[in-house]
Amino acid sequence: MAKNVPADIGMPLDDIDTPALLIDLDAFERNVEKMADFTREAGIRLRCHAKTHKSADIAKYQISRGAVGVCCQKVSEAEALVDGGVADILVSNEVIGDNKVHRLAALARRARVLVCVDDPENISDLNRAAGSQGVVLEVLVEIDVGAGRCGVSPGQAAVPLAKKLTRAPNLKFTGIQAYQGGAQHIHDYTERRKAIDRAIERAGDTVARITAAGLSCDTVTGAGTGSYRFEAGSGLYNELQCGSYIFMDAHYGRIDMDRGTGNAEFENSLFVYTSVMSNARPGIAVCDAGLKAHSVDSGMPVIVDRPGLEYTGASDEHGQISDPGDALRLGDKLFLVPGHCDPTVNLYDWFAGVRNGVVEVLWPVSARGMCV
Amino acid sequence: MAKNVPADIGMPLDDIDTPALLIDLDAFERNVEKMADFTREAGIRLRCHAKTHKSADIAKYQISRGAVGVCCQKVSEAEALVDGGVADILVSNEVIGDNKVHRLAALARRARVLVCVDDPENISDLNRAAGSQGVVLEVLVEIDVGAGRCGVSPGQAAVPLAKKLTRAPNLKFTGIQAYQGGAQHIHDYTERRKAIDRAIERAGDTVARITAAGLSCDTVTGAGTGSYRFEAGSGLYNELQCGSYIFMDAHYGRIDMDRGTGNAEFENSLFVYTSVMSNARPGIAVCDAGLKAHSVDSGMPVIVDRPGLEYTGASDEHGQISDPGDALRLGDKLFLVPGHCDPTVNLYDWFAGVRNGVVEVLWPVSARGMCV
Repeated sequence: MAKNVPADIGMPLDDIDTPALLIDLDAFERNVEKMADFTREAGIRLRCHAKTHKSADIAKYQISRGAVGVCCQKVSEAEALVDGGVADILVSNEVIGDNKVHRLAALARRARVLVCVDDPENISDLNRAAGSQGVVLEVLVEIDVGAGRCGVSPGQAAVPLAKKLTRAPNLKFTGIQAYQGGAQHIHDYTERRKAIDRAIERAGDTVARITAAGLSCDTVTGAGTGSYRFEAGSGLYNELQCGSYIFMDAHYGRIDMDRGTGNAEFENSLFVYTSVMSNARPGIAVCDAGLKAHSVDSGMPVIVDRPGLEYTGASDEHGQISDPGDALRLGDKLFLVPGHCDPTVNLYDWFAGVRNGVVEVLWPVSARGMCV
Repeated sequence: MAKNVPADIGMPLDDIDTPALLIDLDAFERNVEKMADFTREAGIRLRCHAKTHKSADIAKYQISRGAVGVCCQKVSEAEALVDGGVADILVSNEVIGDNKVHRLAALARRARVLVCVDDPENISDLNRAAGSQGVVLEVLVEIDVGAGRCGVSPGQAAVPLAKKLTRAPNLKFTGIQAYQGGAQHIHDYTERRKAIDRAIERAGDTVARITAAGLSCDTVTGAGTGSYRFEAGSGLYNELQCGSYIFMDAHYGRIDMDRGTGNAEFENSLFVYTSVMSNARPGIAVCDAGLKAHSVDSGMPVIVDRPGLEYTGASDEHGQISDPGDALRLGDKLFLVPGHCDPTVNLYDWFAGVRNGVVEVLWPVSARGMCV
């Protein structure tokens, strides 16, 4: 069962073979604490996004530090997290098709399960499946507040779905999901703020119309690491779905989180550990972490604390490193901040959590590969 | 043990939940046969690259159709394939560090194992490890014939490494690896041909110098799906390392394989099966296969046999589809040709092999996640 384990507990960092996915436990815990403090002080619920880590251990740790539960994106992911002991989970996504709908309803026998909808037929399907399992599913109407992905248009379009949910005996209309995913990644602070202000306005209009129709819209959920302060200050959202803040990544590192102060708010705590495997040519070294060790969809990884070195390109199992001073030796180990944390984590079976140079915990990536 | 299984044997295609990684078995077998026929007629050995499929079942099938063995890129990958019954394997890469070197030598007790080197100290390490395991490792000197990745410069630089290998009692100097990885992906036929001609010239010069030093250079290995006919016609290479030809992908589909005839030579046999999960807005649909269901490092996937539809963007678990005619309905299933086959396969635990609309085989991706 314990396949592909990267290290032993107590192993010094130097002895971990590469590539390996490491968590700096001190930085990770500070990130968790910082967000927990913020949400407590802001009086807003935190429902951390588990698609970032896919780990039941991390989910339970976040919940132990005040989160009300977690989100995930897929039914199979939710199953893996519930199997690992998570008791309150929002599939922050539409769940379509008989197989998935029935699996979701079955899961609600074992945990509190919430889900999003943007289609009336899907409401009928969910209601039937929940009835057949003898459960009540809590359902959010998803609105598209600018991300251009899932969700109905903001405003009046949400009202018939909310009404249909209140009429469905095995479903409970819980509120709306209004997540502006695209805005998380707008580099400029002011532009990002503007995009979220528009999202807040659209969500507010939607809530007003639902309320005017005589329905109660208890939950307004959304927000991510790049924007959570805006939604938290809106007076409208009462639940935040931040995920990446626990790890951060090179892409988030390039975003101006706080008006050009260079303050990234959260620390990089996730690293791909890699070794130099070839340096036969001057000016160039090759490391053993390529496309199968980190995801390049949001750009190349950043090499930690080695000025002069740059990770310039990836092939399947190789990383090209520009090393103009020929500083690297064969076998030298480097820490990479991956370009995008979520799909990088999904490549690994385990996290090795490190503190004071020693492996302290091994956490399985419980929902790795669970994309159904 | 059987985790994350996507289907049952005998299941109709329509019943497979999504996302799932499918092989069209007829197309796959025709691809395997076509390359086997070519290499037999050309009188050249085929050592298929298993980094493409990471599957012991597929490796053994290729060997049963005439391949002499397989290549892979990592020691852990080689272990998984040998565990699955592969008896002859080249780690077509440098293997650095005590842990990996010893695992490689231990593996040579169970299978024929070959490896590449580009560093003299690494030769000493491999020799010691082989001695401690009582095995002889077969070793190729890797030369950089233009890919700009691993390998010593072509020509004289290879000679001292070859000599050192012949003096190492537990190693056998077997020849050279001269793989022009970058050239596989040059779109233009003539430019690609030129790049490979330069590689062949450099490999030829290297062989001449090794031979002039009184050593026998038995193996010249390299080539990929984008260039194999050139190396095969060189009179120099005697082993081809093609991998992608069994599956193909959208990136290879964009390469002019045969002087603008549009003849891709091999058929797409690998597909990501996906469902429409949201179509709440006109002109756009969202499918359930995003960055965790296929790799976008070489561009977006292509939607099969649905003119007018285009996969335009991926987020973690969503794919954006342009559908100007609003042809798609919720739950509709589509076949995607992934942008890049190798890292896409590495996201899945299983292949479902389909023939005549029914699942005929389930093959584990034996070496999934084996990046050490």
